[in-house]
Amino acid sequence: MTAAPRTATGFLSAERTASLLRQQGMPVVMDTLARYIEEDFRRWPEFDKCARVANHSRDGVIELMPVADTQRYAFKYVNGHPKNTRLSLPTVMAFGVLADVDTGMPLLISELTLMTAVRTAATSALAARRLARTDSRRMALIGNGAQSEFQALAFNRLLGIDTFHLFDTDPAATDKLAAHLGALGFHVKRFDATADAVRGVDIVTTATADKANATIITPDMLEPGMHINGVGGDCPGKTELHAEVLRRSRVFVEYAPQTRIEGEIQQMPGNFPVTELWTVLTGAAPGRERAEEITVFDSVGFALEDYSALRFLSDLAKACGVEDRISLIPDLPDPKNLFSLVSRADGAVPAQANLAA
Amino acid sequence: MTAAPRTATGFLSAERTASLLRQQGMPVVMDTLARYIEEDFRRWPEFDKCARVANHSRDGVIELMPVADTQRYAFKYVNGHPKNTRLSLPTVMAFGVLADVDTGMPLLISELTLMTAVRTAATSALAARRLARTDSRRMALIGNGAQSEFQALAFNRLLGIDTFHLFDTDPAATDKLAAHLGALGFHVKRFDATADAVRGVDIVTTATADKANATIITPDMLEPGMHINGVGGDCPGKTELHAEVLRRSRVFVEYAPQTRIEGEIQQMPGNFPVTELWTVLTGAAPGRERAEEITVFDSVGFALEDYSALRFLSDLAKACGVEDRISLIPDLPDPKNLFSLVSRADGAVPAQANLAA
Repeated sequence: MTAAPRTATGFLSAERTASLLRQQGMPVVMDTLARYIEEDFRRWPEFDKCARVANHSRDGVIELMPVADTQRYAFKYVNGHPKNTRLSLPTVMAFGVLADVDTGMPLLISELTLMTAVRTAATSALAARRLARTDSRRMALIGNGAQSEFQALAFNRLLGIDTFHLFDTDPAATDKLAAHLGALGFHVKRFDATADAVRGVDIVTTATADKANATIITPDMLEPGMHINGVGGDCPGKTELHAEVLRRSRVFVEYAPQTRIEGEIQQMPGNFPVTELWTVLTGAAPGRERAEEITVFDSVGFALEDYSALRFLSDLAKACGVEDRISLIPDLPDPKNLFSLVSRADGAVPAQANLAA
Repeated sequence: MTAAPRTATGFLSAERTASLLRQQGMPVVMDTLARYIEEDFRRWPEFDKCARVANHSRDGVIELMPVADTQRYAFKYVNGHPKNTRLSLPTVMAFGVLADVDTGMPLLISELTLMTAVRTAATSALAARRLARTDSRRMALIGNGAQSEFQALAFNRLLGIDTFHLFDTDPAATDKLAAHLGALGFHVKRFDATADAVRGVDIVTTATADKANATIITPDMLEPGMHINGVGGDCPGKTELHAEVLRRSRVFVEYAPQTRIEGEIQQMPGNFPVTELWTVLTGAAPGRERAEEITVFDSVGFALEDYSALRFLSDLAKACGVEDRISLIPDLPDPKNLFSLVSRADGAVPAQANLAA
């Protein structure tokens, strides 16, 4: 590859990103990415934040999630279409861009379908490290879809969880998850109902995909000292926890203005008390205070996690010597002479396309 | 190229897009794109619209501009950094994405730096066709930067403007514009001040780039029957017209909620009367009513114009047999098995990168 022009944008395809993660090994990826996320959450006040911008349609939602500090701007494009699996498409697809705040130049465009699952799991485990009991060993995984292996990996690596209770309404999804977790050497137990799967566990992770006000976890399932990691409820009309579960718990969120719109707490009054995760990570607010209290991480996914993921990928690509680039921005000798792009003559002049009126 | 997977995204690089436009010829591009924009503006109520999302920094702004109807979703990433020319970078750089509303799949990613200039000019001329006097022949171009040739081309093609009065604080910019317009066979006159350049013209186009509350056009420059096409004022704190110019004119805008934040009318009270362009295009509201009235198109650029530009580019690429693609979204045999991307073994296992803590 010849020297790239200054306006070339780094490019990490879906395949390239997967290959970079495989080279690192997922446990190392989880460690490192959790560190990146924690570093950025601890700088929370430095970021220009907003709730994501959503366009809702009959079967799903498409969202843009921007965030910036004084140096870097990041955004993610992401959809949520629960019915996509019928078309053999992922329910969540994503890509993102990292740009230079000083010039607006897009520095990197990357796949984020895979990385959204990875960063969501890393954030869940980062939160649970402050919110779950330190002697936690068993986690229920309710919803065994695309997210679930990553959650298991992150909780194993960051908290030492080694026993997983699985349940999904689709037994084939549980087959897939059980096979993957077995191959990783984790202890796996399958159940036929949520109530059975959550009995006696330390942590409950819900990652179901229905766009509906579901009540996956009901008050009768609560046990003293439980930590609930609610991942699947992430847009208006899509929840997983019974309102009473929230009332009996201390609830932690990423970014309250967004979570009040999208999270489990959309069911609660606007002044329902919550604690933002970053305040726990900086030590400004306590995480778990008592062994018997019930904690909920009402995770919806925040733009800053994608900023961290893009920063991680950018560093990883650089460290691995990956230099893929695409030309999104024209390279102009004179930036005021944009017209030069269309005024110069081509060698051959092919026939015009006819876009009929 | 082998058959692309279903999750491949069409890609139009900066060079490919420029080449497609050159093949069509810019006059044909202006005609066709103006038709696409008019078609979409006439469907205005069908779109899910919002003011763009802006992250402001010391020297500029980065914005995301989403819009959707029931079939297609589009967004543009665009920056505005007036000082970029010092670094030989464009002040405005952009790219955009067209996606399928039913699945969230990104169908096309395209350069939009060049296309932003083209669609802005096409929209300006489309508005002027309803707002300028039908006997208009002379236009002043105040600000001779990257936008200016496209404005001249669009007004020549759509309104028959053939004489252009040029002024810019940077004489080199005017040299460049004069050379381009001369080569196109247009009549060109150079001036040393805005007041001289606008004297006796039918239309005034302002396309300056300073991020400042400038008063490029003052009330003493107004002449009966003038149409002012204000293109440069497009973010908070960036205006070109004296407030009194607005008070003496009928003012037309793209999308009032956004223009009240970003346009010339940011200087006016929130109830300052404006007419949205789409109502003029559908015939619901009148355009110019009298030969002697003064009209202003307070253009800031709206997401729907980029939707139209992406729809045009998508059709053009198809018609020309362009099939460039990139892999932003992973192709998964089982969409619930995202983990398969990182669980399969690579042939070789290179050394891990060390992202030191």
